[in-house]
Amino acid sequence: MTELKQKMSEMRREFHQIAEPGWLEFQTTFKIIQYLESLGYEVEFGKKIHSERMGLPSEETIKKYVDSLSLDTDYDPGEILQGYTGVVAILDTKREGPTTGIRLDIDANAIEETHDKEHRPNKENFRSKNSFAMHACGHDGHITIGLTLAKWLMNNKAKLKGKFKLIFQPAEEGVRGAKSMVYAGVVDHVDYLLGGHIGLGTKSGVLGLGTRDFLATSKIDVKFKGVSSHAGASPELGKNALLAAASCALNLHTLTQFGSGMARVNVGVLKAGTAKNIVPSQARMEIETRGSNEELNQMLMSKVNNVIKGSAKTFDVEYEIMQAGGAPAYDSHDDEFINLVYEYLKDEFKIKLAPSLGGSEDVTYMMNRVEENGGKSIHFIFGSDLKAAHHNNKFDFDEDTLPMAFKALKQTIKLLNK
Amino acid sequence: MTELKQKMSEMRREFHQIAEPGWLEFQTTFKIIQYLESLGYEVEFGKKIHSERMGLPSEETIKKYVDSLSLDTDYDPGEILQGYTGVVAILDTKREGPTTGIRLDIDANAIEETHDKEHRPNKENFRSKNSFAMHACGHDGHITIGLTLAKWLMNNKAKLKGKFKLIFQPAEEGVRGAKSMVYAGVVDHVDYLLGGHIGLGTKSGVLGLGTRDFLATSKIDVKFKGVSSHAGASPELGKNALLAAASCALNLHTLTQFGSGMARVNVGVLKAGTAKNIVPSQARMEIETRGSNEELNQMLMSKVNNVIKGSAKTFDVEYEIMQAGGAPAYDSHDDEFINLVYEYLKDEFKIKLAPSLGGSEDVTYMMNRVEENGGKSIHFIFGSDLKAAHHNNKFDFDEDTLPMAFKALKQTIKLLNK
Amino acid sequence: MTELKQKMSEMRREFHQIAEPGWLEFQTTFKIIQYLESLGYEVEFGKKIHSERMGLPSEETIKKYVDSLSLDTDYDPGEILQGYTGVVAILDTKREGPTTGIRLDIDANAIEETHDKEHRPNKENFRSKNSFAMHACGHDGHITIGLTLAKWLMNNKAKLKGKFKLIFQPAEEGVRGAKSMVYAGVVDHVDYLLGGHIGLGTKSGVLGLGTRDFLATSKIDVKFKGVSSHAGASPELGKNALLAAASCALNLHTLTQFGSGMARVNVGVLKAGTAKNIVPSQARMEIETRGSNEELNQMLMSKVNNVIKGSAKTFDVEYEIMQAGGAPAYDSHDDEFINLVYEYLKDEFKIKLAPSLGGSEDVTYMMNRVEENGGKSIHFIFGSDLKAAHHNNKFDFDEDTLPMAFKALKQTIKLLNK
Amino acid sequence: MTELKQKMSEMRREFHQIAEPGWLEFQTTFKIIQYLESLGYEVEFGKKIHSERMGLPSEETIKKYVDSLSLDTDYDPGEILQGYTGVVAILDTKREGPTTGIRLDIDANAIEETHDKEHRPNKENFRSKNSFAMHACGHDGHITIGLTLAKWLMNNKAKLKGKFKLIFQPAEEGVRGAKSMVYAGVVDHVDYLLGGHIGLGTKSGVLGLGTRDFLATSKIDVKFKGVSSHAGASPELGKNALLAAASCALNLHTLTQFGSGMARVNVGVLKAGTAKNIVPSQARMEIETRGSNEELNQMLMSKVNNVIKGSAKTFDVEYEIMQAGGAPAYDSHDDEFINLVYEYLKDEFKIKLAPSLGGSEDVTYMMNRVEENGGKSIHFIFGSDLKAAHHNNKFDFDEDTLPMAFKALKQTIKLLNK
Repeated sequence: MTELKQKMSEMRREFHQIAEPGWLEFQTTFKIIQYLESLGYEVEFGKKIHSERMGLPSEETIKKYVDSLSLDTDYDPGEILQGYTGVVAILDTKREGPTTGIRLDIDANAIEETHDKEHRPNKENFRSKNSFAMHACGHDGHITIGLTLAKWLMNNKAKLKGKFKLIFQPAEEGVRGAKSMVYAGVVDHVDYLLGGHIGLGTKSGVLGLGTRDFLATSKIDVKFKGVSSHAGASPELGKNALLAAASCALNLHTLTQFGSGMARVNVGVLKAGTAKNIVPSQARMEIETRGSNEELNQMLMSKVNNVIKGSAKTFDVEYEIMQAGGAPAYDSHDDEFINLVYEYLKDEFKIKLAPSLGGSEDVTYMMNRVEENGGKSIHFIFGSDLKAAHHNNKFDFDEDTLPMAFKALKQTIKLLNK
Repeated sequence: MTELKQKMSEMRREFHQIAEPGWLEFQTTFKIIQYLESLGYEVEFGKKIHSERMGLPSEETIKKYVDSLSLDTDYDPGEILQGYTGVVAILDTKREGPTTGIRLDIDANAIEETHDKEHRPNKENFRSKNSFAMHACGHDGHITIGLTLAKWLMNNKAKLKGKFKLIFQPAEEGVRGAKSMVYAGVVDHVDYLLGGHIGLGTKSGVLGLGTRDFLATSKIDVKFKGVSSHAGASPELGKNALLAAASCALNLHTLTQFGSGMARVNVGVLKAGTAKNIVPSQARMEIETRGSNEELNQMLMSKVNNVIKGSAKTFDVEYEIMQAGGAPAYDSHDDEFINLVYEYLKDEFKIKLAPSLGGSEDVTYMMNRVEENGGKSIHFIFGSDLKAAHHNNKFDFDEDTLPMAFKALKQTIKLLNK
Repeated sequence: MTELKQKMSEMRREFHQIAEPGWLEFQTTFKIIQYLESLGYEVEFGKKIHSERMGLPSEETIKKYVDSLSLDTDYDPGEILQGYTGVVAILDTKREGPTTGIRLDIDANAIEETHDKEHRPNKENFRSKNSFAMHACGHDGHITIGLTLAKWLMNNKAKLKGKFKLIFQPAEEGVRGAKSMVYAGVVDHVDYLLGGHIGLGTKSGVLGLGTRDFLATSKIDVKFKGVSSHAGASPELGKNALLAAASCALNLHTLTQFGSGMARVNVGVLKAGTAKNIVPSQARMEIETRGSNEELNQMLMSKVNNVIKGSAKTFDVEYEIMQAGGAPAYDSHDDEFINLVYEYLKDEFKIKLAPSLGGSEDVTYMMNRVEENGGKSIHFIFGSDLKAAHHNNKFDFDEDTLPMAFKALKQTIKLLNK
Repeated sequence: MTELKQKMSEMRREFHQIAEPGWLEFQTTFKIIQYLESLGYEVEFGKKIHSERMGLPSEETIKKYVDSLSLDTDYDPGEILQGYTGVVAILDTKREGPTTGIRLDIDANAIEETHDKEHRPNKENFRSKNSFAMHACGHDGHITIGLTLAKWLMNNKAKLKGKFKLIFQPAEEGVRGAKSMVYAGVVDHVDYLLGGHIGLGTKSGVLGLGTRDFLATSKIDVKFKGVSSHAGASPELGKNALLAAASCALNLHTLTQFGSGMARVNVGVLKAGTAKNIVPSQARMEIETRGSNEELNQMLMSKVNNVIKGSAKTFDVEYEIMQAGGAPAYDSHDDEFINLVYEYLKDEFKIKLAPSLGGSEDVTYMMNRVEENGGKSIHFIFGSDLKAAHHNNKFDFDEDTLPMAFKALKQTIKLLNK
């Protein structure tokens, strides 16, 4: 095990240093492809594994980052560099059997890693080289788990049956990337889908099994466009986008009383106007909703839409609503399947059954799609003592988690491959 | 003059006792008709002198008041009792000459007269017999001035030329009645229109001449209709009319900054909801706008409409906007004509030239129409020391004003009849 | 059983006809006293059983109703007629044993009973004689259950031990009456408290046992007092109470997102202003909050207070907050005690264990107090097919429920008296 | 005249190239000092001519700009480089006579000059060298007028009496600089104050004399500071600064109805929040008020303060109000003095008497102070055909205006020096 941990730690630390935010995982994607190809995998990437993407950075941002890189690849990286990031690797044993998908998310957070000298990536020299990004959610670990599993699968190909699909998904932060892959058909023929996440409040050494309470969520950006005017001389000629946004923000926050479950609205950002003496013609808002079930979140979003449209009408301004992200709820908890896995793993792992996520994760797009198609899905929490909360710039996890996570997935695959 | 004052006071006190609010001036109308017919006038009333009426009381209110009266008339009062109140009396001298219109408003205020014993109508026994109405704006005086003038005109018919049209207009309070008469053509062939008002801050003995600064105004009633629901169990099924109204009220009050003149919005009344534990499904608002010119008030009303529609959309409720009253601005101040009258009256009266109204009066509908047709109009203020402000339940005016007002109009008629 | 049902139905129908809203249960109180005294009970009433009362009607309302009654009592009804309604009856067996309290609420709803001929109280001639009140929640049944139990206790006094306290509580609607009794010490020495309610979504023939999910709730009335001013001439001199209330209402509805449980705010009523052309100086709001636990509701009320104070400051108006009602949550579900009762009753009744109330009921004041003092409490739902929802003017329950409810309480008393 | 125009144009173009925003006029100040000293003036600068400054840039901004300059001065520039910009130059004739102050503003606008090739500063090679600033309001011309006048005064010292005080004021944009100078006593002993501005809608060749309608204005920056929290997990622990600002913005815009004159409020900028899933803890607003008279603006600011405090209380957040600028109204129009100047200049200039400013300018601080001390003040508009509106990045004025302005001031000085 010591050797396994060391190898996994090394790999994780390599990915930690090239942290890249969602849809900009260029180096990360290339490195994953390179490793998988070196193992002998057939890989898919670029437009082939994507449909419509949500929450894409601006073309300017993409171009600026691309220009800063000096990439050297054997193949045309064109589509990837347009933000079609992520990789799908397929192992076909050529023996009849189920298709098992394993989903790993690969993006980092758009924050700068702490300069605190006690922070292990600083002490042990593997901090992010990108000042604009840091793996503060453990996805560097997820990539490592996936690649380690890829190696094991290839090494054990002869003993396995069916197909294996390793799905390295971009842009999980902001719940943006899964939908694009799902609608491109990436999980369409998957019989079993395995997902998992490091940390999430579960201690080192504990394996959460059959995670539930994934909240539905929608992320939108809203723009109001009015007409500017001199605030002293001709205020009546202005169409005030700032007031439209202010009224919209207040009224949105009145929408969250539901008898049918938990609902949330947050106007997280509001920016409007340019100068004290000008009637503001531009306003921008960033909004999220959440709901404890899908129907609730959709009803809530319908109310949100009314408020946005009504606020625009009220101040006679134009509006634009942009989908910036989103994930469905995961309601269809399959106790029978979870128990089957539990029985197989319980002697080897300290298991916490059916832990609550209490947040949102776009793996739910994949889990729901697989189950709609008659397949089964399961989500793990790979317990890990954390140095700081997820998304904090001092985040670091316990690397003992890596081999445990690998082993849990490997054993589950064995069970499903019986 | 003493005799004149006494007669006018007596007549005014008779009308004071039968105070009736706008569109309910049934006894008042009958009494005016009776007097005019006794003088030999040809009178017009009912639907003939009206088009579409604004701010009508409910049918129930009309019926209830009609039922409480025991009317005895020689003619069919049917139309009058449907709220087609007011009278137009015409004197045709059969000699070529201009048509001179004189406009008098006849309605009372919907308030109860004070029981204060020092209040002259109480002391001298002429308080309103209707607990729901009081002449608190001096229109009882206006009727008296008009009828006294009617008598003088008939008595002096032989010395006069042209035609005279005495217009006893209902429902000036709330600026509701003039529009209906104007659109029925009541002032269409009028060459000179004379109007006037008792009091308005001008002292006894002073005659205001050429009143200006009549503000444009609109009065509307708005209803929001949503869906009620239990506030604890199923708030999301409600459509909250109270919040729509609250947001509407706030946003309406942001509309009044205009570089092109003075603008006003007032949400004077907001009533919504029935019980603490029910999402309110009904809200009602009473609103007025004002503007220092017509164009401004129309631009303002267009903004008001956007806010109402937008607020309804925001909370997904239905809305209804009802015109409850309105009057245009009077901008077309004719200095030449005013000076002509001034020169004729200045030796006999203490004159305040071009006083500012600083409020709204629907005589402007008539003044504007006459001027649009090439005629001229003038408005007087009949100065009078008041016991309390207009619309106060202790309002009373100085009855010396009555003969002065009569004389001012009579002299002006003489001038215009030269 | 048929005879019991008939007697109970007759009694219930007598109380149904004298329906009286909270704090005005004068005839109801007198009738209960009369019946209890006829059975030989010692009764307490008036100020003795009350402390500070919430949500009292105005003195004028009380006086008006008192004046409309021609009461004939053997004792001084003075305190009762001041709104100190309700009765406490005590049976002391003089044998050592626990004190068992049984709480029954006695008030009606302030609505007019339907005139629909199919409505049984109309068909069978027992509709409410008071047009302003109707038993639309089943409290007429509760009184009947209590008095029937009172008779059984007295008849079986010799076989019983300890004391029995029958608590006929006024003003449960609006959650107003229990607090006053609890703070007067009415349940201070009670070892077991039994409560119950007819209907609540449970079908006829089913007995709900160990009701849970009583929400904490607060009911407040808020007044804003500003300064009126002419909306056209001097709006800046006004202090706008309507806008303060509108802003307050909107902002209150933004407060309900809690991670720690369910929260509710409802501004159920907002009334402000008098006329279109006056800056409104008065506004009144009726508000309720709810929370799934006590701490949450208190945190919520603290936020509500900030919004009210802040809204008043914003528009420079004065405010007043009046407690109009309230009830605590009931969190302390005692599974052991509930199971004890369940085991004793399960053969005789069709039981629904631990039903959810999902609303508020001020019996929780009594249950909490008894448990704080080391006692135990239990709440039943007496299942009953309803003709219309609680508080609907066509409400009627299945009278078969009455004997079942009596029997359930009687058997529970037997168990606790073992 | 041609030579004068050429010299003035050259000087104006030098200042145009070193455009610097308010409180950062370092090169501008040094250049003015240098020129004045070369003429033989005694100059004052630094802290000596300032008291408390409003709307100062951040220390970081100042430092950054200072660091970018390579300054070479004969004297310690320390105070100037802390933002104590501007210069006062005094000429004492040593002969008894009045003290005449002339006020010139020297700052540029914080905008980038257009790159349009047709723009004269581009064509003729004198565009601003600072990409962050442009003279888009004509203050480069004002400096030139002042320095040309300084030269003439020095050259004509022997023919003059009394004292002359040339006041080169920084930070007029945003109405920030005058107050600091006035409270430092700069105009305390001034008998006549002359001010003026190029353009302002008056055509080339026309001299506006006795400008009126300077609006009172206040500029404030407001910060709300709350507490952030996760919007999904624990929204109730947040204190929402964004909603406080939104409610504040809406309610501020309800304040502008005044019977006593024109009032304006504009929330020109609102920025709040950091991310979709975080309850926003920070909000910032930039606000201005205006009023047609001083009393009105003060009453308005008092209402503004209530709204800010009330909004903070409503959402339980902290607030900070920073004065960012301001200027009083100028109400005290002295027709007699204006006519005196008019009679003296009317043969030489085409004069527009008493033009309306209809905006704000902080020269009013100086004019009011001088008049409070018994002196007299007058303001000119130096008519000039403009290429684009003031503050537009294509702004350019007609350089023929420069000699006219110089001459108008020179002649006025002659009159006042008689």
